[in-house]
Amino acid sequence: MPVYQATVSAPVNIACIKYWGKRDTKLILPTNSSLSVTLDQDHLRSTTTSRADASFKQDQLWLNGKVDEIKEGGRLATCISEMKRLRREFEEKNPNEPKVSRVLVPAIMHAHLLQISSFHVHISSVNNFPTAAGLASSAAGFAALVSSLAALYNLPATPSELSLISRQGSGSACRSLFGGFVAWQMGEKADGSDSYAVEVAPREHWPDIHALICVVSDTKKGTSSTSGMQRTVETSPLLQHRIKHVVPERMKAISKAILEKDFDTFARITMQDSNQFHAVALDTDPPIFYMNDVSRSIIALITEYNRASVESGGKIKAAYTYDAGPNAVIYAPKENIKEIVELIYSYFPQTEPFKDPFGLFGAAGPKGKVVDGFNAAVAKPFEAGAVKGLIHTRVGDGPRKLGAEEALLNAEGLPTVLA
Amino acid sequence: MPVYQATVSAPVNIACIKYWGKRDTKLILPTNSSLSVTLDQDHLRSTTTSRADASFKQDQLWLNGKVDEIKEGGRLATCISEMKRLRREFEEKNPNEPKVSRVLVPAIMHAHLLQISSFHVHISSVNNFPTAAGLASSAAGFAALVSSLAALYNLPATPSELSLISRQGSGSACRSLFGGFVAWQMGEKADGSDSYAVEVAPREHWPDIHALICVVSDTKKGTSSTSGMQRTVETSPLLQHRIKHVVPERMKAISKAILEKDFDTFARITMQDSNQFHAVALDTDPPIFYMNDVSRSIIALITEYNRASVESGGKIKAAYTYDAGPNAVIYAPKENIKEIVELIYSYFPQTEPFKDPFGLFGAAGPKGKVVDGFNAAVAKPFEAGAVKGLIHTRVGDGPRKLGAEEALLNAEGLPTVLA
Repeated sequence: MPVYQATVSAPVNIACIKYWGKRDTKLILPTNSSLSVTLDQDHLRSTTTSRADASFKQDQLWLNGKVDEIKEGGRLATCISEMKRLRREFEEKNPNEPKVSRVLVPAIMHAHLLQISSFHVHISSVNNFPTAAGLASSAAGFAALVSSLAALYNLPATPSELSLISRQGSGSACRSLFGGFVAWQMGEKADGSDSYAVEVAPREHWPDIHALICVVSDTKKGTSSTSGMQRTVETSPLLQHRIKHVVPERMKAISKAILEKDFDTFARITMQDSNQFHAVALDTDPPIFYMNDVSRSIIALITEYNRASVESGGKIKAAYTYDAGPNAVIYAPKENIKEIVELIYSYFPQTEPFKDPFGLFGAAGPKGKVVDGFNAAVAKPFEAGAVKGLIHTRVGDGPRKLGAEEALLNAEGLPTVLA
Repeated sequence: MPVYQATVSAPVNIACIKYWGKRDTKLILPTNSSLSVTLDQDHLRSTTTSRADASFKQDQLWLNGKVDEIKEGGRLATCISEMKRLRREFEEKNPNEPKVSRVLVPAIMHAHLLQISSFHVHISSVNNFPTAAGLASSAAGFAALVSSLAALYNLPATPSELSLISRQGSGSACRSLFGGFVAWQMGEKADGSDSYAVEVAPREHWPDIHALICVVSDTKKGTSSTSGMQRTVETSPLLQHRIKHVVPERMKAISKAILEKDFDTFARITMQDSNQFHAVALDTDPPIFYMNDVSRSIIALITEYNRASVESGGKIKAAYTYDAGPNAVIYAPKENIKEIVELIYSYFPQTEPFKDPFGLFGAAGPKGKVVDGFNAAVAKPFEAGAVKGLIHTRVGDGPRKLGAEEALLNAEGLPTVLA
């Protein structure tokens, strides 16, 4: 029996212009466009194997080896059924074409190949980073899910077309269908057919953009972004102004900055938009807070780091941005990352050694150090563990098809990784 | 020699609709109207004695016994010279009238009474609460300064007229010229002559409004409100929407709620407007944060306290509001204050005994306790000292003229209180 299976990995993305608010909660259509940087899968990724088989009794999905229920009418069910629909349409249009990836299918075609859209699927998905890190794992997860089904089904769909479906799993997942710098165009149509992701520039255009993720401890359970953003839509008077007047301008300006590799403008808009997203969260009733005192201190450090540079005739060196949680993501040109790590170390002593994927530090690792002109009094140093980890990565590529040796389902169609 | 002197105390006020942004920084003309509750001087007050004497060599001012320099062109100088101008106009219009308070002046009029506008003044001002408590001491201070000079000069000015001058000392000081519920009408004129305070309702209208001030520790030095608000005016895209579209509606709605003693509406608007003020501070570039994790936790507690009440068919029981600092002011009908103190005690253990001016608790004092239906998991208890003090007060009256026995200047015209 042939095995109809594909394995794909997909990246995390972190927005510079934030998505916050839906105009349609079922189709996941946003109230404003957004723009993100795709991070390198060498460091952070979600990997998914999908298999279709006539013997499967039902669609099943495992996340990190644990069953994740596919609820009827839920987001997982929507993505899977939409991908089956695309496969069905493909089968109907191409009755004589091979229907699954040549790599995975024996040269001899089987009659039931025509019907794999009607098979149940088994899907096994693994994140290589802790879900608890609050790193928008759902974006990478749904992008990998949709991409692995597209590969399994040998669909000719473009990333933008697939993004229409991953969007219905998790809005920001549509942006993980591309590498580099990616815009999610909000669209206008009620059916969502014009609300998809497009590439602003590939990673190769500006590979110098690196990212440092500061994983911040928080004892408080935050408001989920799904419920939080709808409360903002319903209650924040300021959100409407942001949607109508602020975001459209910023989308144009930051796209231009990316095309011109103008880090100064890119950084200013990124920080302003992070702050405005948290401002409209605070303008919500009751208010929503995602940043804590540690997050605020990281903002103070980066603000001072930039001030010291600009006032001595230099440029903006780094940009912070915060999603719906206390973690900071700091974007900076590669040449500044070493200084930034040392700056973070001086205020947030680390308990774990720094994984140094780009070899910036010797065996001794980073030390706490501030740069010339930096006013060390802008923030008080925290106890060790307030920032519980630093991850250094960079702008990355889009979903990757992986070989059979990386499959996450075993011969029986069960996950190779167990929780 | 007669002594030309007057002593007045003036109250603190805490805004429900926040003042944030000036359209004229010299005249202190705001970008939006605001509204506040005047707090009771029995608990929090600034007391000021002003004396005019031909022998004084210069205008001098002592704050809590310490010289406070009257800088040329500064706010103190402006208020003093404006009050002298009013006195001069009064002298010119009333050449035959007694020129200083009858209480303080001997029956025999002195020729040079006509000239006391040309005398230098000595002014001694004392706050009965620590400046470090971050309780808008400048509002009470400038209101007391202007009121004591008005009494010294025996001016027939109304509180609204005096508010035009105290406004130029500290914007929010104009609202401390009245007791009860006070609006600062932003005005439209370039000279500021229509930007003054008016009484929305006196304290007697709704004396049931009590206030609990939670003094929150903060190691971080915040951005001064003077520089902070101008940075917001210059950089926050959201502020313009707040000014034009949100505040005018809220001013009307909260004034109506006060006249109707509708605490539910009063509380909702108060909390929404506090949050929106902090939202535009966060939308500023670089962002401004005044609330910290303790402030956020108090918001979470009050939100949950109200939710538990409303969901069991009751009403909103309390409203939080935060000025340009981490301290919470909680407004509530008197009957709820006991519960609220117990709630605060359960999450923020106190190191100092609760001063119980209204005798809510017995000798044992308050204990930590949550009310029925309250979800105790909404916040984690903090270490003792995170909230370093609780002050219970209520809506209060406007400036009070005090007797000579309360004067803060001695026979030599020097402060009775030394720093």
